[in-house]
Amino acid sequence: MNVVQIIEKKRDGHLLETEEIAWLVQQYTQGEVTDYQMAAWLMAVCWRGMDARETRDLTLAMVRTGDQLHLREIVSPVIDKHSTGGVGDKITIAVAPLVAACGVAVGKMTGRGLGYTGGTIDKLESIEGLRMTLTREEFLRIFSQHHLVLAGQSGDLAPADGKMYALRDVTGTVESVALIASSIMSKKIAIGASHLLLDVKYGSRVSVQTVEQAYPLARMMVDIGKLAGIHTVAAITSMVQPLGNAVGNALEVKEALAILKGEGPQDVTALCYHEAAELLVMTGHMPDMERAEALVMQAIHTGKAFEKLVEVIGAQGGNTRQLEQPELLPVAPVRIMLKAPQAGYIAGIHAEMIGIASMRLGAGRFKKDDVIDHRTGLVLQAKVGEYRHVNEPLVEIHARTEAEAEAICAEILTAYSWSASPVSPVPLIHEMVRP
Amino acid sequence: MNVVQIIEKKRDGHLLETEEIAWLVQQYTQGEVTDYQMAAWLMAVCWRGMDARETRDLTLAMVRTGDQLHLREIVSPVIDKHSTGGVGDKITIAVAPLVAACGVAVGKMTGRGLGYTGGTIDKLESIEGLRMTLTREEFLRIFSQHHLVLAGQSGDLAPADGKMYALRDVTGTVESVALIASSIMSKKIAIGASHLLLDVKYGSRVSVQTVEQAYPLARMMVDIGKLAGIHTVAAITSMVQPLGNAVGNALEVKEALAILKGEGPQDVTALCYHEAAELLVMTGHMPDMERAEALVMQAIHTGKAFEKLVEVIGAQGGNTRQLEQPELLPVAPVRIMLKAPQAGYIAGIHAEMIGIASMRLGAGRFKKDDVIDHRTGLVLQAKVGEYRHVNEPLVEIHARTEAEAEAICAEILTAYSWSASPVSPVPLIHEMVRP
Repeated sequence: MNVVQIIEKKRDGHLLETEEIAWLVQQYTQGEVTDYQMAAWLMAVCWRGMDARETRDLTLAMVRTGDQLHLREIVSPVIDKHSTGGVGDKITIAVAPLVAACGVAVGKMTGRGLGYTGGTIDKLESIEGLRMTLTREEFLRIFSQHHLVLAGQSGDLAPADGKMYALRDVTGTVESVALIASSIMSKKIAIGASHLLLDVKYGSRVSVQTVEQAYPLARMMVDIGKLAGIHTVAAITSMVQPLGNAVGNALEVKEALAILKGEGPQDVTALCYHEAAELLVMTGHMPDMERAEALVMQAIHTGKAFEKLVEVIGAQGGNTRQLEQPELLPVAPVRIMLKAPQAGYIAGIHAEMIGIASMRLGAGRFKKDDVIDHRTGLVLQAKVGEYRHVNEPLVEIHARTEAEAEAICAEILTAYSWSASPVSPVPLIHEMVRP
Repeated sequence: MNVVQIIEKKRDGHLLETEEIAWLVQQYTQGEVTDYQMAAWLMAVCWRGMDARETRDLTLAMVRTGDQLHLREIVSPVIDKHSTGGVGDKITIAVAPLVAACGVAVGKMTGRGLGYTGGTIDKLESIEGLRMTLTREEFLRIFSQHHLVLAGQSGDLAPADGKMYALRDVTGTVESVALIASSIMSKKIAIGASHLLLDVKYGSRVSVQTVEQAYPLARMMVDIGKLAGIHTVAAITSMVQPLGNAVGNALEVKEALAILKGEGPQDVTALCYHEAAELLVMTGHMPDMERAEALVMQAIHTGKAFEKLVEVIGAQGGNTRQLEQPELLPVAPVRIMLKAPQAGYIAGIHAEMIGIASMRLGAGRFKKDDVIDHRTGLVLQAKVGEYRHVNEPLVEIHARTEAEAEAICAEILTAYSWSASPVSPVPLIHEMVRP
């Protein structure tokens, strides 16, 4: 095999053989193929794309460079879940214990946030003592005992993906359906669940801009999942406004707890229950959506879903009193209420701008090694479609200082657009993409 | 400026600003932009291309990274010449002294051969004592005194091109019109002639395959020349069969000497005289092609053209007795005549296969640091369109050993195709591309 010939073959628009892709990834991981050769190849992939078979081959080649957990050999069915990320996305924190409480195991590794989309791990670390960095043995033991585990991403899974992602980040080769899909799926396949639910967000630069861009990514990942033997379904969901009301780490944990008690904001609560029911049907645990939704509501109303989260957080060393009394979670020293500057229907809340405002308050990272302030963030008091009178509460700002709170107000207001006539919000779920 | 943004801008098909291209090349030369970032950018250029203005900007940015000779400030007009390279291409060795003998100065830096196309420098080094590696001062002194100089390429001219070419070679990014054109033109602009004749070969993998591929490259270089203030004309010429009869270093020098004496093979002789006349008209030295061709014939028949080559070779330390008595040039110990295996009209002689056969005899390089044997090569005894009876001489093989000569026969014969009916060779000059 010759690396230049493989680069040229993709550059010229040909399909690569399984063996060529496997060789390339292996040689790159070993340092025999250089960063500059991989960078040229990655740009050729951005140009020419890869089909589902090639993308599966790339995914599996990356999986083979590292450890594999084979969760489905411990208990089956077992669910994994992944969201492409968005502002206010606390779905995993609610859905994972909800499904586990309904009797289907969930093993989830989750990433740190880059930029203004805090990761699930950052949010959960609001809880005192919680250990998200588990050894392989700890992960498997907690999963086996509780049929639920929520850990940080292990660097031992698909290390080639880590190396390639770092290179893509500095060579303008992030935005490729095949490369995004294989990066996500390599870590999912390494964990080895039997069923996977993907949440592909559209509507903001945090994810992809349009449904037209989201669909091929969703389709590609569902196809790779099928080729790799994981039953995969993707929900294409809207990120045209933040999800739920809370944006910021401890604030989002509180909202997830509310969802598990049946007291969460309508939009995000409905999405969580729907995704949980979908997973119960997907795995064959329940025969149809109606009965699955009934089981979900039962887990909420009996408190089983909430108790399941308390159980696993406790197993991972977290202070469960903070879950039972959410007021014990970290609180920002300054809270001020930003009022509606005008009357009207809220026509839009720009998710990205809200995310950046929250990041400036300390809830996100500008640079990789910035330390997150778990206390800060925003709580939206009204969502798209609602009417506000002038001076009615619009956004509660949770800040470290008065000055930081005051400084962010104008920026938050630019995220809002207003209408004199009624506005209908876009449905949260646009489409389900199935195998 | 931000390198990832510049890569993404080109990746997304946008034109880059002059300042962006200048910054990228400068930062890369200084090592601030990495090889992997440049590799990704180069692949994006292969994908999206660059227009004439961008390509001129890249060319001038590379020129500014090194030394410049400003030949036209010493004498004007002054001619430079470049061929994209081909099998049996000894044009420069004949045309440069021919034009100089007609009264127009020529300053030429020439490259080493890569692969089976030996470079002009390799061919001339068949001459004992000849110094092709000149200092800047020597180059300028010889040029000023003789209005002719034939030196090896200086690494001090456009060093960014050298660094980028080495990277392109190992990242599958050689084949881009904009990158090929800027690489060639950066060295030409650094030399600073007033007029430039380009010979863009088509018909073989040594250059580009088709006229359709040659034209955009020729057009791009003519346009860059114009934008950079050099009067540039490009000849699109055929490389569907080797040029002339001799292929190999000393063998080609001998053929160039024959051309300068009016005794060369018809095809290559006609091309040399035509190109020389074109240069005399281009520079305004002669008013039209008819009178220019008459002056060229006069320089040949009076021996002035031949004497001019002798003069400059002497000035560069070469043994001029080898020019006056070409039998003193290095001779291969073994010569055998390969006979026509069949009767018929020669329908094709595959230039690339002949080049590779010659390389196997020692006349070219498989690897960059291979040492060339100046003695070996092939002398074709008949060209496309000629009729051969069976067992008539076809190719004279000049080899180091009987075994090497015998071993190459079958390979040479596969380069030939035959026809029972008469065949017309393709005209050597397909088209002249002018500003």
